[in-house]
Amino acid sequence: MKDAEVLLERGANVAFFSWSKGFSFGLKACALILVSTLGYVHLSSLSSKGIELIRHDDHTDFSTTSTDQDREYNNTIIVITPTYKRPERLADITMLSQTLMHIPNVFWLVIEDGDYKVEKVENVLKRTGLRYAYVNTTNQGLPCRGWAHRNYAFDWIRANRKHFKSNDVVFFGDDDNAYDLRLFRDYIPNVKVMGAWAVGTSGSTLVESPKVNKEGKLAGWHVMFRPDRKYATDMAGFALNIDVLINSNASFNLHCAGSVPEECFLRQVNVPWSNIQVFGYDQDDVLIWHRKTAAGQYDENFPHNGYFTETLKIQPKSCQRMQPINHISYEEALRLFNKGDN
Amino acid sequence: MKDAEVLLERGANVAFFSWSKGFSFGLKACALILVSTLGYVHLSSLSSKGIELIRHDDHTDFSTTSTDQDREYNNTIIVITPTYKRPERLADITMLSQTLMHIPNVFWLVIEDGDYKVEKVENVLKRTGLRYAYVNTTNQGLPCRGWAHRNYAFDWIRANRKHFKSNDVVFFGDDDNAYDLRLFRDYIPNVKVMGAWAVGTSGSTLVESPKVNKEGKLAGWHVMFRPDRKYATDMAGFALNIDVLINSNASFNLHCAGSVPEECFLRQVNVPWSNIQVFGYDQDDVLIWHRKTAAGQYDENFPHNGYFTETLKIQPKSCQRMQPINHISYEEALRLFNKGDN
Repeated sequence: MKDAEVLLERGANVAFFSWSKGFSFGLKACALILVSTLGYVHLSSLSSKGIELIRHDDHTDFSTTSTDQDREYNNTIIVITPTYKRPERLADITMLSQTLMHIPNVFWLVIEDGDYKVEKVENVLKRTGLRYAYVNTTNQGLPCRGWAHRNYAFDWIRANRKHFKSNDVVFFGDDDNAYDLRLFRDYIPNVKVMGAWAVGTSGSTLVESPKVNKEGKLAGWHVMFRPDRKYATDMAGFALNIDVLINSNASFNLHCAGSVPEECFLRQVNVPWSNIQVFGYDQDDVLIWHRKTAAGQYDENFPHNGYFTETLKIQPKSCQRMQPINHISYEEALRLFNKGDN
Repeated sequence: MKDAEVLLERGANVAFFSWSKGFSFGLKACALILVSTLGYVHLSSLSSKGIELIRHDDHTDFSTTSTDQDREYNNTIIVITPTYKRPERLADITMLSQTLMHIPNVFWLVIEDGDYKVEKVENVLKRTGLRYAYVNTTNQGLPCRGWAHRNYAFDWIRANRKHFKSNDVVFFGDDDNAYDLRLFRDYIPNVKVMGAWAVGTSGSTLVESPKVNKEGKLAGWHVMFRPDRKYATDMAGFALNIDVLINSNASFNLHCAGSVPEECFLRQVNVPWSNIQVFGYDQDDVLIWHRKTAAGQYDENFPHNGYFTETLKIQPKSCQRMQPINHISYEEALRLFNKGDN
């Protein structure tokens, strides 16, 4: 069992990287040409303000797919999507994939929560025709809802920085939210430093949104919970310029204990309000909804008759321990962290 | 209040009909030309085996949009989607719309549950560029989960039969399910009489599916609940040829009391098993998942700051009364029906 785990851990750190026209060698006309540029990329260790996390060797496979897009885009949207195994996961990620397929300037960075990747998930990504990378990491003792996975994404972007442009934009696109295409067409590509917008069905309200003053500049946040936060936005309510993000060295780390993850993270990025563009304040459409697929009660013993299904991933004990992270002190969080994953 | 209700009822029955190239007058080159052919279409009354339901006059507005599809399709998929007002509805229908946008041979027939239609929903339909109709009806005393709405769709198709071809296919596509594009590309367009396939996260199982014999012919159903049903499928697990459906006069009616709606309906359609094509039994991919967006707890008094939101539609009392419909007799159902909606 222990050996199997070690093997899984090794096999786990393989990243696939699919690159479209405009990059690589201009193989526009080809339907599906795989260019394998294999190489081990040594990722810098994840540092979270004094806490040394697990070091990852990232085996990145660069491959190329061409797409038949006739529209030229000025920049790329890097969509960071943490995901985890559950019965409803393929449903969620399939629907999201079909939304993103309308947006040719997306680079989809999907981070599997766990020791291995799932072929059926990678197949979904492949079918989009989008550029993507599919990687995986454990939760590394941090809370389970994407903390370590987003940190891993930041390091992945750093390691692959040369493949992106300085005006590319990073967006957190969870696999269970709902997105209107116009978010990707009208808002995110136009983000210079940081952009912010309304999020539907979020935080006990039908809609949360940034407030603006007469000049259309950010003037606060229309939220129910702690509206005095400096960045009172949901993860889905903002996007950041690639270098603003990765040069900040911001991460989801144990110093976020006692705070809200988004607030903690954005305080590290520290974009002045004057540099935050507010989108959509002059219209009444919501373009993104925070949502969750209802978890069903399934009899996992009923045979799946040969069809591929997923059961709920059993989370390490540290996830449960870390659940009250928003309400505990850093010292208490550190104590729980040192107990490890099991 | 009574007069207002009558006005609402009248205003309610307006149907919009959007038609693409290939139909109408060959206005292929135009981006968005509205051809208004106004005319009252007298719909036949909904009959449900002895129960006279409300008679509807349907004001149908035929309009034309052109689409830039370079692929020619042999037939049209009529997707019937009942929908109702709730905080998560626009999120659901937006995601579904973006999936359907990949399928140019879809005609989307959306039936609003209630006395009026919702402009924001119609805007979603318009943005797809697909042919569509958006209509509305109350639940007409029947159970609230789409019974009257699907019946209304059948009558709508009968009234507009001339706009469809004899090899067109009808599919029930609820707005909260998840769909893989391949369902619309590889399965449904190839349905001759009736098609059936696996459905993920359905009926307390991770996957329900039709069983096949060695010849690939339907041989039963791999479901947990009453596997001896003649048609043991979820609403999402089959599609029907247009004429097989509307010539059958099948409906969701009070004689379905004591049964499962799908089984009751399909027993009326009565396609022999030998005429049911089973799709996907030789692969392990699930292409459709029965799912539901988790209903959040929102403070409806918190102002929406000018953004459009929806609250949960208060359902008529008959819905609650009819909830045990699967377990009561026809006579008991009839008694509840005669109590009316309020």
